[in-house]
Amino acid sequence: MIVLLKKKPNKDELTNLIDWFKGMGLNVHVSEGEERTLLGLIGDTSRIDIDLIKALDIVDTVKRIQEPFKNANRKFHPDDSIIEIGGTKIGGGNFQLIAGPCSIETEEQICTIAREVKQAGATMLRGGAFKPRTSPYSFQGLREEGIRLLLAAKRETGLPVVTELMDISQLKYFDDVDVIQVGARNSQNFELLRELGHCKKPILLKRGPANTVQELLMSAEYIMAGGNENVIVCERGIRTFETSTRNTLDLSAVPVLKELSHLPVVVDPSHATGVARLVGPMALAAVAAGADGVMVEVHNDPQHALCDGPQSITPAEFSMLTRKVMRVRGALAR
Amino acid sequence: MIVLLKKKPNKDELTNLIDWFKGMGLNVHVSEGEERTLLGLIGDTSRIDIDLIKALDIVDTVKRIQEPFKNANRKFHPDDSIIEIGGTKIGGGNFQLIAGPCSIETEEQICTIAREVKQAGATMLRGGAFKPRTSPYSFQGLREEGIRLLLAAKRETGLPVVTELMDISQLKYFDDVDVIQVGARNSQNFELLRELGHCKKPILLKRGPANTVQELLMSAEYIMAGGNENVIVCERGIRTFETSTRNTLDLSAVPVLKELSHLPVVVDPSHATGVARLVGPMALAAVAAGADGVMVEVHNDPQHALCDGPQSITPAEFSMLTRKVMRVRGALAR
Amino acid sequence: MIVLLKKKPNKDELTNLIDWFKGMGLNVHVSEGEERTLLGLIGDTSRIDIDLIKALDIVDTVKRIQEPFKNANRKFHPDDSIIEIGGTKIGGGNFQLIAGPCSIETEEQICTIAREVKQAGATMLRGGAFKPRTSPYSFQGLREEGIRLLLAAKRETGLPVVTELMDISQLKYFDDVDVIQVGARNSQNFELLRELGHCKKPILLKRGPANTVQELLMSAEYIMAGGNENVIVCERGIRTFETSTRNTLDLSAVPVLKELSHLPVVVDPSHATGVARLVGPMALAAVAAGADGVMVEVHNDPQHALCDGPQSITPAEFSMLTRKVMRVRGALAR
Amino acid sequence: MIVLLKKKPNKDELTNLIDWFKGMGLNVHVSEGEERTLLGLIGDTSRIDIDLIKALDIVDTVKRIQEPFKNANRKFHPDDSIIEIGGTKIGGGNFQLIAGPCSIETEEQICTIAREVKQAGATMLRGGAFKPRTSPYSFQGLREEGIRLLLAAKRETGLPVVTELMDISQLKYFDDVDVIQVGARNSQNFELLRELGHCKKPILLKRGPANTVQELLMSAEYIMAGGNENVIVCERGIRTFETSTRNTLDLSAVPVLKELSHLPVVVDPSHATGVARLVGPMALAAVAAGADGVMVEVHNDPQHALCDGPQSITPAEFSMLTRKVMRVRGALAR
Repeated sequence: MIVLLKKKPNKDELTNLIDWFKGMGLNVHVSEGEERTLLGLIGDTSRIDIDLIKALDIVDTVKRIQEPFKNANRKFHPDDSIIEIGGTKIGGGNFQLIAGPCSIETEEQICTIAREVKQAGATMLRGGAFKPRTSPYSFQGLREEGIRLLLAAKRETGLPVVTELMDISQLKYFDDVDVIQVGARNSQNFELLRELGHCKKPILLKRGPANTVQELLMSAEYIMAGGNENVIVCERGIRTFETSTRNTLDLSAVPVLKELSHLPVVVDPSHATGVARLVGPMALAAVAAGADGVMVEVHNDPQHALCDGPQSITPAEFSMLTRKVMRVRGALAR
Repeated sequence: MIVLLKKKPNKDELTNLIDWFKGMGLNVHVSEGEERTLLGLIGDTSRIDIDLIKALDIVDTVKRIQEPFKNANRKFHPDDSIIEIGGTKIGGGNFQLIAGPCSIETEEQICTIAREVKQAGATMLRGGAFKPRTSPYSFQGLREEGIRLLLAAKRETGLPVVTELMDISQLKYFDDVDVIQVGARNSQNFELLRELGHCKKPILLKRGPANTVQELLMSAEYIMAGGNENVIVCERGIRTFETSTRNTLDLSAVPVLKELSHLPVVVDPSHATGVARLVGPMALAAVAAGADGVMVEVHNDPQHALCDGPQSITPAEFSMLTRKVMRVRGALAR
Repeated sequence: MIVLLKKKPNKDELTNLIDWFKGMGLNVHVSEGEERTLLGLIGDTSRIDIDLIKALDIVDTVKRIQEPFKNANRKFHPDDSIIEIGGTKIGGGNFQLIAGPCSIETEEQICTIAREVKQAGATMLRGGAFKPRTSPYSFQGLREEGIRLLLAAKRETGLPVVTELMDISQLKYFDDVDVIQVGARNSQNFELLRELGHCKKPILLKRGPANTVQELLMSAEYIMAGGNENVIVCERGIRTFETSTRNTLDLSAVPVLKELSHLPVVVDPSHATGVARLVGPMALAAVAAGADGVMVEVHNDPQHALCDGPQSITPAEFSMLTRKVMRVRGALAR
Repeated sequence: MIVLLKKKPNKDELTNLIDWFKGMGLNVHVSEGEERTLLGLIGDTSRIDIDLIKALDIVDTVKRIQEPFKNANRKFHPDDSIIEIGGTKIGGGNFQLIAGPCSIETEEQICTIAREVKQAGATMLRGGAFKPRTSPYSFQGLREEGIRLLLAAKRETGLPVVTELMDISQLKYFDDVDVIQVGARNSQNFELLRELGHCKKPILLKRGPANTVQELLMSAEYIMAGGNENVIVCERGIRTFETSTRNTLDLSAVPVLKELSHLPVVVDPSHATGVARLVGPMALAAVAAGADGVMVEVHNDPQHALCDGPQSITPAEFSMLTRKVMRVRGALAR
């Protein structure tokens, strides 16, 4: 961390400041120029509150060199994290193909889709029970009943399941859920993240549409700081001016996340683009960019599926996609 | 609402679709062209799930003409809402000047600032007890103890108080708080919004940094749909590529919000810009743009205030600002 | 095009308006509701000035159904365009791997890199002679001398060359250049685009960092409307709030562009990300997303290459990348 | 400028690097830590090519402390620049109210509007002759004939005129134009900016919709580096995800620009918002934020003005606005 002081720092203030930093266990290198004094702070600066230093009267600007996260940081954990999910794994070369409907509607619907996506090559099942909807008048999901139906599909197919939790009060329904999803709008719901740090279940943490890659890792750090190391981060598009897709899928985030962190990275092209025709190309691009998994929306019966959005693909399309995904993974592994 | 059908719709499907819309209490105007069929839906379309219609097989695109919110809509409530806040009012020409520190630190600190901002012209007191921080290692606020200190400052000065609630489990501490703030990161925490619809206390709802004006009003609609009409919306900057300010204060949102909705609109230039020197000019600009209130961070002792950010102004600066705010309001009222 | 009129349109005005549209060769379908009148305009609306209609007193809103571009539109040209470039081709299954240095520095430098990238599998050579730089104090390129050196490298290797033109007055130096590049900052320099419509040389048109996919195609339309159909569009990142990459590479734009238009699509991961380590993953992702070509910066001697940015990869890295690109293309072609 | 070196720099390389910086006239402060070596560069670093330093093998990161512009920098020119415009002035307390139509259509139209806006309080006349339009099929302006008509209105009313130049080849028509406007899409057309540095006429430089405040000042620097100090910068909205306005007017840019630079700052609320009803509130907000001028679109005859956009206000509305602008300026001056 580099601290640039204001012109002409008072001698006593400077000594106090240096002592204060030393008290935090940091080494301080002082570089006094004609016009400016620079302090270089060496040591573990990840737990330092940068705003606190900026607020000091004698400080002009503060620049971090080290990232402000530690548990999620690859520097302190060089090997890829491998996370266990109900008998399967993600990360460190283990790839997951997660598929399922936007909303769980009926037991028949979720079980049928589960069988179809499993046959097509899916290794995990997704399905929404608690649904975050922009409008209070839109269908809000089957809620706890939806979780019950998802677990029926899990029992029938053996696929591990992932589904979204919107409030910590819902945690009691998630005992048999394999992975808890934190949605994009809750990506900086810090109270929720802190609570999830106290459970041991894998968390699929989606990037907020206005969050940088670093902020996503800071949200992961919230969970990890509480003791839960099982965090999978998920790129699902950021908000930009472009209107041809719902959000802009930021695939550069995949190699950036894998460089900064050891956590597995999943990509969700369905929510990112909001357009079924783009899901295939973007899933393949995600794989080529190095993702540890992709999560796609699949609906079973486009003729009657009132609640599946225009972003879902059919099981037949998904089956073709899984074959291409596997071929691209093969091409890159050689 | 305009529904454009795909080429060559099947006669039966068309009849079924029209009957379905009529079953929702809508009138349907059919316009059959050579290449395309258009349906115009007349009636209360605010409660219709647009994604459900888009997902129908015979539908190409759907365009709303009417806004998807009703309780917050000025069309159905032409007069400005006036909200009562502990003996004072906001909206309909009633203006509030809300000031106070970023974080509540000690009883002396919050009471001193409260006295100073009251003397300078503030009509409400703000102060953070539950603090949303990007890093789990940053100071998270005094939490319930902070609320207790804020209420002490309220008793001493008589100023109504506003402070942030981060999770519905904290509601029990807010009995004597006058206005509950929903922070920018919780602006689309729909579970929280729904719960706040069940209390009657005024809510200051901040715009999320990735939310459009319409999405802000949809979040207000969540609260109002639950029965709580006392919503104040707050512009506090959106996330853009510009880095000279923390966020980009979108002052155009003020007249846009006041045109679309009857709810009072407050502007927070401190969090938007993150720079103390910009707070004054932007507060004045907000007033000139027609805001019903401004909310600014003020700290009492910049020499020792370790936790106040670089976005706070001093009581003396605030005093000068209030005089200018009043002069600008006077100039516009003539 | 759908035109929604204001409440209670005057009978004569309505007749005049309909006649005016008919005079433009359009069919007009009138749908009169109780509260609103809708006009559906059928025919070639691509040449209609939407702002002109919006400005009419009796018009409330206008929505396009058809895209506002025609020459670039796949609807009117269903097959992929195949563009001839100095003996080679791009589009319709023809793929180009374009490589070379950011700036042309010396004849030795550009010829060495040209030989190396050719051997590694490049099919076209890029190199900057006229350099758009944010600062007037940065190196502005060798300009016409740079073009001369680039053409020497072309003669030596036989690789077709692409290089940027910044002003139409520079066109005289481009006689032997195979493809003229229009840079991102000139993507809406309409005077320049119009002039380039009068030459027959292939144009590589980069997307402006604040331009939507549709605006990029409108800029292509400017060139094509002048008679030059040889336009290649290039995704090179858009401006967002994310700071870990210089811009945000919008790979969804690749399938969107290929759906809306028949023009070949190239991706430039070097300028988009600004980080050498991300060039490989993003080039592979671009190929998986369906790009007709990728353009990457390669420098020969990282020890002494003062002018190559941190976004360039070495010839050895490029050689590995080309092998992976070919394997991914093979995996997708099966 | 702070240069952070990579771990374990070679002694000779370090000496060479320091000598190289000294050869540029800079003082170098070396701070060697256990893990890292920092160099602090003191002196005029505005002319240093930061990319060149970043590209050096032994350099990890480079951070500027000083801004990369010099002529436009308030640090080297503490007083406000006052620019002479045809007998009037802008900057240093001199305020300009610039009004006129989007497009010049006929001599009668431009002269009528000129008379009306002058009577309402305008001090300068604007009007578009060369029109940058997104579509090649939209009206492109009357071009040189438009300039002729604008000059007729200037002669009749005595108002100084400002109009846009799109290509340096058009400069010959601008002899009697008082201020040359560089449009938002040309804000980084560096060849054009460089050429305009060779004339002495005042330039109204609009901010590009994807440009930061610093990039706007770098574009101003291009003009000033050529010898033309008469630059007025203009905020006209940036591109964001918000769709209720055409662009997002960034009024914080006004005090930021005035702090960083001595150049006059004008705000254009018409193009920024694209909505006539928002022009008044945003013009007043711009004045309250400290702008040296506002530029608004005014059309004379909304019944027949086919080419004026929905962003124009009427002369009567403009007249009311000027009175409010003057009252707000008065309120702030006291």
